[in-house]
Amino acid sequence: MAEKKVGGAGLRGQSAGETALCTVGKSGTGLTYRGYDMTELAENAKFEEVAYLLAYNKLPNQAELDQYIAKIKSLRGLPGALKTVLENIPADAHPMDVIRTGCSMLGNLEEEKDFSEQTDKIDRMVAVFPSIICYWYKFSHEGVRIETATDDDSVGGHFLHMLRGEKPNDVHTAVMSASLILYAEHEFNASTFAARVCASTLSDIHSCVTGAIGTLRGPLHGGANEAAMEMIQDWKSPDEAEEKMMEMLKRKEKIMGFGHAVYTVSDPRNAVIKKWSEKLAADVGDTTLYPVSVRCEEVMWREKKLFCNADFFHASAYHFMGIPTKLFTPIFVMSRVTGWTAHIMEQRSNNRIIRPNADYVGPDPRPVPPIEDRD
Amino acid sequence: MAEKKVGGAGLRGQSAGETALCTVGKSGTGLTYRGYDMTELAENAKFEEVAYLLAYNKLPNQAELDQYIAKIKSLRGLPGALKTVLENIPADAHPMDVIRTGCSMLGNLEEEKDFSEQTDKIDRMVAVFPSIICYWYKFSHEGVRIETATDDDSVGGHFLHMLRGEKPNDVHTAVMSASLILYAEHEFNASTFAARVCASTLSDIHSCVTGAIGTLRGPLHGGANEAAMEMIQDWKSPDEAEEKMMEMLKRKEKIMGFGHAVYTVSDPRNAVIKKWSEKLAADVGDTTLYPVSVRCEEVMWREKKLFCNADFFHASAYHFMGIPTKLFTPIFVMSRVTGWTAHIMEQRSNNRIIRPNADYVGPDPRPVPPIEDRD
Repeated sequence: MAEKKVGGAGLRGQSAGETALCTVGKSGTGLTYRGYDMTELAENAKFEEVAYLLAYNKLPNQAELDQYIAKIKSLRGLPGALKTVLENIPADAHPMDVIRTGCSMLGNLEEEKDFSEQTDKIDRMVAVFPSIICYWYKFSHEGVRIETATDDDSVGGHFLHMLRGEKPNDVHTAVMSASLILYAEHEFNASTFAARVCASTLSDIHSCVTGAIGTLRGPLHGGANEAAMEMIQDWKSPDEAEEKMMEMLKRKEKIMGFGHAVYTVSDPRNAVIKKWSEKLAADVGDTTLYPVSVRCEEVMWREKKLFCNADFFHASAYHFMGIPTKLFTPIFVMSRVTGWTAHIMEQRSNNRIIRPNADYVGPDPRPVPPIEDRD
Repeated sequence: MAEKKVGGAGLRGQSAGETALCTVGKSGTGLTYRGYDMTELAENAKFEEVAYLLAYNKLPNQAELDQYIAKIKSLRGLPGALKTVLENIPADAHPMDVIRTGCSMLGNLEEEKDFSEQTDKIDRMVAVFPSIICYWYKFSHEGVRIETATDDDSVGGHFLHMLRGEKPNDVHTAVMSASLILYAEHEFNASTFAARVCASTLSDIHSCVTGAIGTLRGPLHGGANEAAMEMIQDWKSPDEAEEKMMEMLKRKEKIMGFGHAVYTVSDPRNAVIKKWSEKLAADVGDTTLYPVSVRCEEVMWREKKLFCNADFFHASAYHFMGIPTKLFTPIFVMSRVTGWTAHIMEQRSNNRIIRPNADYVGPDPRPVPPIEDRD
């Protein structure tokens, strides 16, 4: 097979394989999970239905959903050794390092010995990741050892319950569900592709997900909603936001939460979360952060023809629910683990090790000089 | 940019970027690190010189090497929290899960906050990975908390010293050095490519290496020397080896340690480690394992025209030095971390996020049915 370059750096425009899981920018509002429009799912289904769809390749009927939720609820407890690990991670650690380490440690304690165990391991990760995040956060920041087994039906409700110590209201539970749905899956993004490269060596599922978490950690991938929050949180009015943004644009600073590598006109996930952010702003009586966010959207479109992506209105939405900014990207993990693991199963089902070539641009062959002759 | 398929599945035959670090199968004996032939390095240099070459882009002169070795020696200690994590991992855990978790935990305690710290973080990983492996192994298997700060000059000597509780002789130190040199770097293999995908999101170096460890764990990548050892260890004579191998071939079983995705005629690393295995066999008075290994090589070439790769004679060589089979692949990590991290630096120096496309083969767009209408 001749070696050939197609597209640009970063494999842009090159196909790296097949998937039946997702389309990005192809039909309807542009994002489908196994053929279902993401927006329709976010409006009509719960996150647990989407997690089930990705893991079991069908939308659950009521009996299946009830059984799935019962299973997830039963899998939220942390093994003692994992608690010990989390208690040994300092408060100033990067939260993505914490969940990466928590996932890796889980692999030591509950190793996937055979691929026949894969869906059980996936259900466990969906159930326990919120526990890992909140256990570390509450212990390191508040010195509290929380109970991670709540009776909340939903993953998002469970997360908010542990974080705040009380059951969330229905609106907050609904926002979390929609948010987790829209972050669940996005084709061959970098973290998913990293998971597939790992899976292609037939490694275990905890290795694949651990690698994906580390990849999502990068500021060019996850973390844009945190960066957006840090930008907008100090602006006191839409006019100040516009002024500061114009200055940033003049200085050619990168502004996070806008534009997308694949979408060209709009990101379908923005409409979903923007609507929820507006609703939450009304509920909490916000007269600053939401109007500031709307002005940012207007300015970026007017000045740069750049639209808000999934991340921008997530910043205000999460903030209105009292979620600390540093936990925004770990929430992404709680959701995307469903997409990653669906891709891992898909890679395993028709596998060839992912081993591309490289173009060599280094020195010509040269002899090894004796150490006394070296510069 | 038009989407186009080149080569086969697994990106085979496709270029995924440029590298100045390595050629595989291109010139000389087929494997060069920054233009230097691997065989010449294995014969004339120490592993620490190769580690330096990969990290600092030059072969060190004597003063530089002395300084580098002194630095590595000073970085072997384990933080208390990392010891606690290792003590909480059971003896029956997969050793690659242990080192993956150890690396991830290190990232919590000694986070790379800025890329200007990258070479310091690399030196630390080269120094501390043997400590992580041996500390867990000795604690979980023998209940002993070992001292990880030895005064051995070499990484390989340090490892054997911790494992056995006494300084290794010069031959064993030399074998470890050659072994670590020949596993150090191998272009865009799957684990290195996983590290580059992670690096392309501008994530931290511990995330990249953690992902690479998990990828190397897969039986299609690392682990072939362990599988070879498990195969040959029960054979009592060359004739028995030939008989059993012929049966395996008849049953079309996969035989590990032979052939290679890129090399077609021979693997240049085999000659290096085979010579050392022969020497060690003579030293320990072996009259079984080495002759059995040689017969396996003959049979595979005669029957299948398959040559031994880097892994096959590593099995007997490591075994003659008293290294437990389950630690073979972690030694690979102790070596390859130098190649991985050189690739991470290279990716960072000219970065674009690695985000390929996928060919969609899933269901057409379809409406979300109400839950009561689902099968």
